[in-house]
Amino acid sequence: MIPQSLREEMALRISRIANRMKTQGIDAILVSDNANLYYTSGRVFSGYTYITADGAATYFVRRPVGLQGENVKYIRKPEQIAEMLQEKPAVLGLELDVTPYGIVERLMKVFAGAKIANGSVIMRQARAVKTDFEIEKIRESGVHHDMAYSRIPRIYKGGMTDVELQVEIERVLRNEGCLGLFRVSGGSMELFMGNLLTGDNADNPTPYDFAMGGAGLDASLPVGCNGSEIVPGSTVMVDMCGNFTGYMTDMTRVFYVGRLDDTARKAHELSIAIHYRLAKEFHAGCEAKKMYEVAVAMVEEAGLSDYFMGHTQKAGFIGHGVGIEVNELPVLAPRSRDVLEEGNVIAIEPKFVIPHVGAVGIENTYLVRKDGLECLTKSPEDISELYYY
Amino acid sequence: MIPQSLREEMALRISRIANRMKTQGIDAILVSDNANLYYTSGRVFSGYTYITADGAATYFVRRPVGLQGENVKYIRKPEQIAEMLQEKPAVLGLELDVTPYGIVERLMKVFAGAKIANGSVIMRQARAVKTDFEIEKIRESGVHHDMAYSRIPRIYKGGMTDVELQVEIERVLRNEGCLGLFRVSGGSMELFMGNLLTGDNADNPTPYDFAMGGAGLDASLPVGCNGSEIVPGSTVMVDMCGNFTGYMTDMTRVFYVGRLDDTARKAHELSIAIHYRLAKEFHAGCEAKKMYEVAVAMVEEAGLSDYFMGHTQKAGFIGHGVGIEVNELPVLAPRSRDVLEEGNVIAIEPKFVIPHVGAVGIENTYLVRKDGLECLTKSPEDISELYYY
Repeated sequence: MIPQSLREEMALRISRIANRMKTQGIDAILVSDNANLYYTSGRVFSGYTYITADGAATYFVRRPVGLQGENVKYIRKPEQIAEMLQEKPAVLGLELDVTPYGIVERLMKVFAGAKIANGSVIMRQARAVKTDFEIEKIRESGVHHDMAYSRIPRIYKGGMTDVELQVEIERVLRNEGCLGLFRVSGGSMELFMGNLLTGDNADNPTPYDFAMGGAGLDASLPVGCNGSEIVPGSTVMVDMCGNFTGYMTDMTRVFYVGRLDDTARKAHELSIAIHYRLAKEFHAGCEAKKMYEVAVAMVEEAGLSDYFMGHTQKAGFIGHGVGIEVNELPVLAPRSRDVLEEGNVIAIEPKFVIPHVGAVGIENTYLVRKDGLECLTKSPEDISELYYY
Repeated sequence: MIPQSLREEMALRISRIANRMKTQGIDAILVSDNANLYYTSGRVFSGYTYITADGAATYFVRRPVGLQGENVKYIRKPEQIAEMLQEKPAVLGLELDVTPYGIVERLMKVFAGAKIANGSVIMRQARAVKTDFEIEKIRESGVHHDMAYSRIPRIYKGGMTDVELQVEIERVLRNEGCLGLFRVSGGSMELFMGNLLTGDNADNPTPYDFAMGGAGLDASLPVGCNGSEIVPGSTVMVDMCGNFTGYMTDMTRVFYVGRLDDTARKAHELSIAIHYRLAKEFHAGCEAKKMYEVAVAMVEEAGLSDYFMGHTQKAGFIGHGVGIEVNELPVLAPRSRDVLEEGNVIAIEPKFVIPHVGAVGIENTYLVRKDGLECLTKSPEDISELYYY
C-alpha cells in the first residue's frame, strides 16, 4: 500500500493525528473522505483508514484490487471492519462534517456502543500543519503554476472572450502537469479549474463565499466566465487551478487590455502593498483575524472599501489555508480563532471589484514560518497589459 | 428566481416530487445538494429548496444576493427556515444519502419533533424520469458531444501520450461548450473531465466501480491517463465529459493505432451487437437487470467473459441512469430492482479490457421509450484507425 519512500512520512502524519486524538480523548478515528484517505495513506482508494490513539493505522480497502501490506485488509462492506478489529474503541471519531448522514448511521451500528466524536475537526487541525514533505509538494506546484501563468500574455489574442482565453490557459496548465481537479472540502462548492473574470462579470454574485464572482456559462454552474468579450478598458483576473502534485497552490494574477482605469490601478497596487505588509509583519503565533483587520484598515485608509472583496456581494475573509483542499485551516476572517502555526500554508487574496472595469488584486500562497511568511507563488505581481500578437 | 420560461417546467417537477411524497407519507422535503437545487429551481444557489406535499416550493437562499420572487426568502442560517414557515411538517424528508451528518443533525434540531425520512430516495426516483424539457437538454448535449468527438482523428498526432491527446480533446470539448464539470452524486468518486485509456493502462484497477481503469498521473487522483505513449497495436478508448447543458450524455468511442488485435476487434463488434440487441428488445416496463443478463449471456457465448467489464478488476454493472449526474437511476446491474420507465435516460457501456492491447467497446446514452430505446449519442461506432497527419 505505502511505498518504502513514504513510510516515514505516513508514520509522521499518523503520529500527529494520534497525538491530537489523545488530547481529545478519542480512542480511534475512521476516515473515508478522499482527501483524508490520501493524507493518511499517500493515495486515494475506496475504503477506510482506521487510526488508533497509540499511533497504528489499518487500511480497510474495497478498491482497487491488489494493494499490499501487513496493515491492508480487504473488505466488501463496512460491517466487516468491526469483525476484523481486535479491540473496539470506546470513543470513535468519524468525519461528521463531510460523511453523509446515512453512512455515519451505518457506521454507528457497526461500532454500536462506542461514543461518537467529530473526527473531522482532528483531521482538519492535523492537515493544517504541513510536514516538510507536503511543503515540498506545494512548492513544486508553485513552480509549475508560475510556469503556466508566464505563458498567459502569449496565449491572448485580440477579440477573445473570457472563456476562449480560459480554455487556452486550461490547456497550458494541463500540459504543464496540472491534474485539473480542484479539491474543495464539503462538495457544495463547485467550480471547474478555477475562474477567469473580465469586466462587469466580476461583479456578478455567485452562490459561494468567493471574493470574486462571475455569472458562469450556465445556470447549473453559475460561477466564472460568462462568455464576455475581453474589451479595451477592462481587466482580466486569472485565478486558476494550481493542483500539480495532489497539493495545491492558489494564485491570482491580473492583466488589462487597452487602458487601465486609475482606481483599478490604485486598488491593484494596494493589494500588493497589503501582501507586503502581511508577509513582513505576520508569522507563527499571530492571530489570523489580525491579518484581516490590518488589510481592512489599509483599504479603509485608501477609501476603497466599497470595492474590497467584492462589490455587489462581498466575501467574508481575505485568505484561507490550502493544501490537499483549497478550503483548509487557518481561515483569515474577522471571527476566526485560528492562530498561525509554523507549517501552515495560506493563500492571501485581498481583491477588489471595480464596476465597469473588472477585478484587480493578487493572490499568493505562503508558508508560515517562525519569523515571517515565505511566498511560494512567484509570478510577477504588477498588473500587466495583454497585447494582440 | 425562476424565469418565466421555466415556470411551467419547475411546477411540473415540483408536482412530481410532491406526488411521490404523498404516496410515501412525507409532508415536506428540504434539499440543499447542488444537483437537487438545480433540479428544483433551474439554477444552483447556496441554500435550500423546501417542498410540501401539496406541491408548493419555497427557496431559502443564502447566496447569491439579488434573486427575486415571491417564494424566495433570504436566510443567513438554517435556523431561520423554521421561523419563516407557517406550518411545521410532521414527517420531513432530508437528503440522508448525501448531506453530511453534522448538517443533518443541525436540521433535525431546526425541525425538532418532526419524524425524519430519507428524501434522497424520492429525489433520485423523481429525477430518474426526465421531463420533455430535460430530454431536450440531454439531446442538445449529445449533439455537441458528437461534434467534439468527430474531431478526435484530426487532433491525434503520432508519438502522443495518452494525456497529451486527452488535453487536446478537453480543449475541443470546452470550445464546443462543455462546462467541464462531471457531476457525480456522493462526492467520493472523483475524476476530471472523463478518461482516455490506452494499452495496458486500461487494466490498472481504480478505486471506483468503473468498467475501465487507469492508474492516473498521481496517487491523489488514481484514475485515467498515466502518461503512456500511444503505441502501434494498442487501442485508445475515449470516455469524456458530455456536460454541455447541465445535463450530460455519456459516450465512449474507441480508436486504434497501427494494427488492431483480432480479439479486440471481435470484442468491439460484440459490444456494438449488445447495444443493437438491447436497444431493439428493451423498452419501458422491462426489468433493468435483464439487460445485464442478456449482455452477459452474449459475452459468454462469444467466450469473452474474461475481458468483460474489466479484466484485473471488474465492474458490477453494464449501465446507469444519466442526467444532472452521471450515477442516476436506473442501474443496469444483476441485483437491480429497477424497472425501465418511459423518460428514463440510460448509458449502456458493455466494455472489454484486452491485455496488452487496451479497452474496447462503446457507450451510448439512450432515452427509454414505450417501444424501445432511442439513441442520443450518434457518433460512428466502429473502432477506427488514428493516422498521423
